[in-house]
Amino acid sequence: MHVACSSLHVSVAARQGDKLWGGRFVGDTDPVMEKFNASISYDQRMWDADIRGSKAYVKALEKAELVTTEEMNSILQGMDQVSQEWSKGAFVIKPGDEDIHTANERRLKELIGVPAGKLHTGRSRNDQVVTDMRLWLRDAISVLTENTLQLVSTMVERAAVEIDVLFPGYTHMQRPICLSLFLSTHFTNCLNSMDATGQRDFVAEFLFWASLCLTHLSKMAEDLMLYSTKEFSFLMLSDAYSTGSSLMPQKKNADSLELIRSKAGRVFGRCAGFMMTLKGLPSTYNKDLQEDKEAMFDCYDTVHAVLQVMAGVMSTLKINQSVMEAALSPDMLATDVAYYLVRKGVPFREAHGMSGKVVVMAESKQIPLNQLTVEDLSTISPLFESDVSSVWDYRSSVEQYSAPGGTAKSSVTAQVEQLRNWLAKKTSTLTSVPSHLFNFKQAA
Amino acid sequence: MHVACSSLHVSVAARQGDKLWGGRFVGDTDPVMEKFNASISYDQRMWDADIRGSKAYVKALEKAELVTTEEMNSILQGMDQVSQEWSKGAFVIKPGDEDIHTANERRLKELIGVPAGKLHTGRSRNDQVVTDMRLWLRDAISVLTENTLQLVSTMVERAAVEIDVLFPGYTHMQRPICLSLFLSTHFTNCLNSMDATGQRDFVAEFLFWASLCLTHLSKMAEDLMLYSTKEFSFLMLSDAYSTGSSLMPQKKNADSLELIRSKAGRVFGRCAGFMMTLKGLPSTYNKDLQEDKEAMFDCYDTVHAVLQVMAGVMSTLKINQSVMEAALSPDMLATDVAYYLVRKGVPFREAHGMSGKVVVMAESKQIPLNQLTVEDLSTISPLFESDVSSVWDYRSSVEQYSAPGGTAKSSVTAQVEQLRNWLAKKTSTLTSVPSHLFNFKQAA
Amino acid sequence: MHVACSSLHVSVAARQGDKLWGGRFVGDTDPVMEKFNASISYDQRMWDADIRGSKAYVKALEKAELVTTEEMNSILQGMDQVSQEWSKGAFVIKPGDEDIHTANERRLKELIGVPAGKLHTGRSRNDQVVTDMRLWLRDAISVLTENTLQLVSTMVERAAVEIDVLFPGYTHMQRPICLSLFLSTHFTNCLNSMDATGQRDFVAEFLFWASLCLTHLSKMAEDLMLYSTKEFSFLMLSDAYSTGSSLMPQKKNADSLELIRSKAGRVFGRCAGFMMTLKGLPSTYNKDLQEDKEAMFDCYDTVHAVLQVMAGVMSTLKINQSVMEAALSPDMLATDVAYYLVRKGVPFREAHGMSGKVVVMAESKQIPLNQLTVEDLSTISPLFESDVSSVWDYRSSVEQYSAPGGTAKSSVTAQVEQLRNWLAKKTSTLTSVPSHLFNFKQAA
Amino acid sequence: MHVACSSLHVSVAARQGDKLWGGRFVGDTDPVMEKFNASISYDQRMWDADIRGSKAYVKALEKAELVTTEEMNSILQGMDQVSQEWSKGAFVIKPGDEDIHTANERRLKELIGVPAGKLHTGRSRNDQVVTDMRLWLRDAISVLTENTLQLVSTMVERAAVEIDVLFPGYTHMQRPICLSLFLSTHFTNCLNSMDATGQRDFVAEFLFWASLCLTHLSKMAEDLMLYSTKEFSFLMLSDAYSTGSSLMPQKKNADSLELIRSKAGRVFGRCAGFMMTLKGLPSTYNKDLQEDKEAMFDCYDTVHAVLQVMAGVMSTLKINQSVMEAALSPDMLATDVAYYLVRKGVPFREAHGMSGKVVVMAESKQIPLNQLTVEDLSTISPLFESDVSSVWDYRSSVEQYSAPGGTAKSSVTAQVEQLRNWLAKKTSTLTSVPSHLFNFKQAA
Repeated sequence: MHVACSSLHVSVAARQGDKLWGGRFVGDTDPVMEKFNASISYDQRMWDADIRGSKAYVKALEKAELVTTEEMNSILQGMDQVSQEWSKGAFVIKPGDEDIHTANERRLKELIGVPAGKLHTGRSRNDQVVTDMRLWLRDAISVLTENTLQLVSTMVERAAVEIDVLFPGYTHMQRPICLSLFLSTHFTNCLNSMDATGQRDFVAEFLFWASLCLTHLSKMAEDLMLYSTKEFSFLMLSDAYSTGSSLMPQKKNADSLELIRSKAGRVFGRCAGFMMTLKGLPSTYNKDLQEDKEAMFDCYDTVHAVLQVMAGVMSTLKINQSVMEAALSPDMLATDVAYYLVRKGVPFREAHGMSGKVVVMAESKQIPLNQLTVEDLSTISPLFESDVSSVWDYRSSVEQYSAPGGTAKSSVTAQVEQLRNWLAKKTSTLTSVPSHLFNFKQAA
Repeated sequence: MHVACSSLHVSVAARQGDKLWGGRFVGDTDPVMEKFNASISYDQRMWDADIRGSKAYVKALEKAELVTTEEMNSILQGMDQVSQEWSKGAFVIKPGDEDIHTANERRLKELIGVPAGKLHTGRSRNDQVVTDMRLWLRDAISVLTENTLQLVSTMVERAAVEIDVLFPGYTHMQRPICLSLFLSTHFTNCLNSMDATGQRDFVAEFLFWASLCLTHLSKMAEDLMLYSTKEFSFLMLSDAYSTGSSLMPQKKNADSLELIRSKAGRVFGRCAGFMMTLKGLPSTYNKDLQEDKEAMFDCYDTVHAVLQVMAGVMSTLKINQSVMEAALSPDMLATDVAYYLVRKGVPFREAHGMSGKVVVMAESKQIPLNQLTVEDLSTISPLFESDVSSVWDYRSSVEQYSAPGGTAKSSVTAQVEQLRNWLAKKTSTLTSVPSHLFNFKQAA
Repeated sequence: MHVACSSLHVSVAARQGDKLWGGRFVGDTDPVMEKFNASISYDQRMWDADIRGSKAYVKALEKAELVTTEEMNSILQGMDQVSQEWSKGAFVIKPGDEDIHTANERRLKELIGVPAGKLHTGRSRNDQVVTDMRLWLRDAISVLTENTLQLVSTMVERAAVEIDVLFPGYTHMQRPICLSLFLSTHFTNCLNSMDATGQRDFVAEFLFWASLCLTHLSKMAEDLMLYSTKEFSFLMLSDAYSTGSSLMPQKKNADSLELIRSKAGRVFGRCAGFMMTLKGLPSTYNKDLQEDKEAMFDCYDTVHAVLQVMAGVMSTLKINQSVMEAALSPDMLATDVAYYLVRKGVPFREAHGMSGKVVVMAESKQIPLNQLTVEDLSTISPLFESDVSSVWDYRSSVEQYSAPGGTAKSSVTAQVEQLRNWLAKKTSTLTSVPSHLFNFKQAA
Repeated sequence: MHVACSSLHVSVAARQGDKLWGGRFVGDTDPVMEKFNASISYDQRMWDADIRGSKAYVKALEKAELVTTEEMNSILQGMDQVSQEWSKGAFVIKPGDEDIHTANERRLKELIGVPAGKLHTGRSRNDQVVTDMRLWLRDAISVLTENTLQLVSTMVERAAVEIDVLFPGYTHMQRPICLSLFLSTHFTNCLNSMDATGQRDFVAEFLFWASLCLTHLSKMAEDLMLYSTKEFSFLMLSDAYSTGSSLMPQKKNADSLELIRSKAGRVFGRCAGFMMTLKGLPSTYNKDLQEDKEAMFDCYDTVHAVLQVMAGVMSTLKINQSVMEAALSPDMLATDVAYYLVRKGVPFREAHGMSGKVVVMAESKQIPLNQLTVEDLSTISPLFESDVSSVWDYRSSVEQYSAPGGTAKSSVTAQVEQLRNWLAKKTSTLTSVPSHLFNFKQAA
């Protein structure tokens, strides 16, 4: 060990207080961890998507009157300048720019100052990540579409030119075929007599759908297992979906959920196996394709069982409302404290900072947030007034978010109603038209 | 094929006379191989789809006047009887029934005799496999849709009941949330504020699309590599897509095609890795999701390069028409011989048998098929007359199949024209609407 | 466990009283779940391994004086009879036989009665599963070894016979080669000039080692994440390996652990991709192999970073001893209650049943186990005496298992010492011989 | 399409001569292809391994008297200088440096001139790739070993410190356990009571072994399929391993080989599925592990069948010696021409260039190499004399390589003898000791 890391001073110390691994890093964060965590080296590629997303977002903020028209214009101009710096290769990534979102916002603030802090009102970095990826991918797919069309076009024109060339069809039923037919095989499935028997996209797509579906169910199972541990105790599984023993009634194994979680692997294994089988096969039918059926049957049986067991689990589990609500704690309202200040005109980033100070103050006094007095709070900002008491209520916190998809009771009720309608429509369709090909992505 | 199996004349003439491995099997086909090859143990599950497919097919044959109405009715009734046997568990699988198609046809012949042989006019077993699988899968998906709707329904009703329960949202930004919202998270993506940041289906689907696309390109590459071997010599790759040396002009390595073939693995590896990363994650955002970006970028770059290189390869390869046509041989016309007899009223299975005898006769005389005289042929069937000479022409063989997707020049020309129109439409759409999400499955 | 299934008292008390999904199943356990859970349909294949394992185990029990010689003989004879029934195809699987272990034990009890219950002293079904699988796999590998040797032998003899045949070597450097060399290529890596350049087993094996290693680390990360949730609060991650904000000190995201967990997917994706790339390649060098390097580098970099970050996490995390110990509860001592009775001569299965009754009694009185009086306990068995109080101590519970690998402090100390010695030896070896190929399986 | 690529001029031209895709690239090689093909961007990481490999190689050349001591010294000094340039970051990658091997050799030549051309006598770039990767990986593994030992060490010392902490064991049989035991679980398999039931490395390793084994067999199958196409006609499969029809004896489908090729996918799918199932599981037994058995059984059955079928195929296939030898052509002797010159003192790279000119000359005269006269050849180099005729013999070409593993009959015979001895030893061991765990890597 001392060869490569001869300067490591492993000082095994007491359990509390001292770092056992001390000496390896000097700052607050282990530099290895910092590099392990950062994504700027590759996500800077989305700089343009990030800027376009932010520009669209600030326009929405202005409409919602969360920024003024002047602030919006300042942000838009600042973002244009950031964009130009990237275009010219002049943008300088600085220490602390852990991702493209942080980098662009940091630069914006340098350029326009305070209003930059308002851009992030009501959106998290995770929202930005997804938005940027979707924007980037939309453009990427557009380019790939063009590439694909160029390839198809080349092959079609080649097929047109070679229309008189015959050669042997290398399938089980050897026959003379037209080269042009061969050339067009790859993009005319079901339209072309050669490829109809050698193509299994419909199987591969079903196997992948099954995999993605069970990946979602593995996630659902993981949530439920976590919530049903003794330490969480949010949920209790019905005996009908647990194993254990009547001899030890206090002990239940969430076997149903563990099995559901495991099946994502099984089904994806089938997909992986079939894709590997397909790789590098020559055109038309190959006996290799015989692997299709067992994979298809197994994935069907597995998804079929998993969906039924999960429906059973969901319908019979017991919910411990009081335990769940006892798990709520005032520090979860820190964001609400920030929004309280935003409503009084403080830019979000600044409000977020003040809210952090509120948390620190409560920590140092060893009391929950809601026991801080208005006097305490006013030392952080004079904007805190007696109406802050309205923030200290979980129910009202939830009720604030009444937009579609939000947490307010009305939003959730609307969502439930929407889903009921969707289900009613789906179910009636199912009765009259008994089969739908690959039509349940929405549900899964 | 079931016929074939019982009368196989194995003359194993290993170079040394004796089998080196002798003694392990006694029959004509190695029993291990027979079992390895057979699919009846699992594909019998498609018995109903197979029968429904055959019933639809015989109706099409009657419309095309390839079977009479009486023959059709006989086949339909026979098939109904086979179906009843399966339903009752009374169907007996016999030795030689290597798959469900063989088993059903064998049984049909036992029940109705000769007309059974007409059922297979113009379709191969490979056609049947695909048809049966599609029919079976359509029903299977219908069941899974119902299962999914039941699960969704259970969760929606549960969400409706639990609408007053609050608990902590376990994401990076911990907040009180409504349990009902959590319950509906899994099937209301983008409709629901909780899941928007934790869902990466769009990435997983892109990675899979890229994998399937490159699997197709690996197939195309494999074909081209095979055809450009010295032994085939059908094609010659352009220098621009080969490596080797100007010093050794006779030697070209199809590096472009080998690299294209390899990339299917690379890209699917990214898909497999990301699916494994997703497995078992709890709901909402987890830092694990950071794996999404490098996978997405790498797949994009790879597909982007592969499509361009393949277009270059396709546009510049040299086709050796004379070598391709020299590879045609009269035995490839055996199916045409069979259809010659079918046109004279012989059931397809019987005609196929006679055609086989023609091949054997040519083999034993060591001459090509087209050098057999009408006298020779008439010893097999008196239906062979001087007009058989029309069969011995590759071009007319190809021209027979003039249905859409067929091999006739007119069919191929039509297909080329259709593709040109499709491309023109696609391209113009691309101009006005610059980006399309996941819209090129048809092309790939 | 088979006992348990028949006497399960399901009291499904879903929050709303009625099952939302009611009517789908009538029994205590959802039949879909029962089938989903059972493994007898495939694990019966290990019947012989299971019996052999049990026979070896009962001999060990006799040596440890946990069964008498007569009991051992009775069990051995019973097991032989069960074995004969399987051999003859006469073994009848009954409802409740959910796996091969349950089935064999159930049958043993039918045959020899009470002593059957002693067979399972001190081993869990999970122990049996692993033992059976290892025994079965050892035999399986023996068969595969023979098959492999037969194939090698066939090819070697074929190579001997064909020694004079020359043909072109189909690699980038085309040369005449001897067919025999080609035939022996596949099993003489590094011994044979043809395969040396086309073989990448060492890369594939490294990629798989990396995958297995990171799968273990994903498990370690999962444990630590669970234990550091607010609800568990067993551990607290150091700031150096968390993200979040100094502004919100109460909130820490275990980003380091989530990233570590994610990397198992990334690395296995590389392995999967490379295996798919290798599939179906012809012999010798193909340009496809160029995929080897990026995969190898990426896996190295990833494992390198993960190991360092995990060492940092482990060395700096804070352990909350009091919270951990508060999570212990008397019902965890149920097994100790059973062993208390076993020490007084009760067969394990029977003792286990009594212990279960003790748990039920405590539950019904709504008190912890250790508050039951000797009078309470004696209604279950007169063997409970005042010395039962010694059971109600977590520390002594742990101290009971002092065998190597056990939970007693002495065992753990020994293990720690053993590991220190191993590490010292490893490290010194590392100094003198600076590199070891694939030699750390033991550690990972 | 014309959006992004508005300047593309697709000029569909005649089949012969003109590039259909003309205009996209101007040089001889499509720049997209050049980038697609190059590996220098990532394989430069092996610069040190490449230099160390070359230094070892030149020493071997000197021992074999293929370079003089002075030439060796010149090369060693040159290589040291190249090494220093890399170390200092001063090495400049130039256009044409497609990989690290080319780059280092190019630089060496710039530094020392002519003798650089002798370094590559008798080794191909593919040899270098493998050597470099092995050297690099050996060092990489050494670093990972250190990282692993550091992690183990941290955890062992932590375990020593925390030896008094108890907490609940989160397995199906909940018990109090010692935290130290938990900490040491991950690296003391089979030594530790906690992990024995929750560890499935032996299954994962078997599944991967099966995958790698079948990947090799897919390669063997691919070779045989290629060689048995009508165009190659090197081999003919026995009827016992083909399907087809006695009716069409000229037509054989290599179903056995296609099925063998397909199974690599199936088996790896099982491995992929199980690895995904393992990912992210918490410690100790989880019901998810139940996926182990079906995967294990299926892989066993598949490998078992594949090995038997392949042995049958190999023992019964017919080899067409005359066709194989007719496939040899004089241009395959180009390397021998180069070695003819090397034996006369020409550095290899120079000799290789002259040999290329010989090939060009034969091409331009449209005659095979061996019909060039000594006069023709002497215009390329005066070193060509009448003894060049000895080169034009395939058998002697093969006989030149008589080192162990070479193509000479004596080498191959030795190899066959070696394998027979190995088999005899293996088989006898198999008889006396009936089972071997994972002991056939050598054979596969």
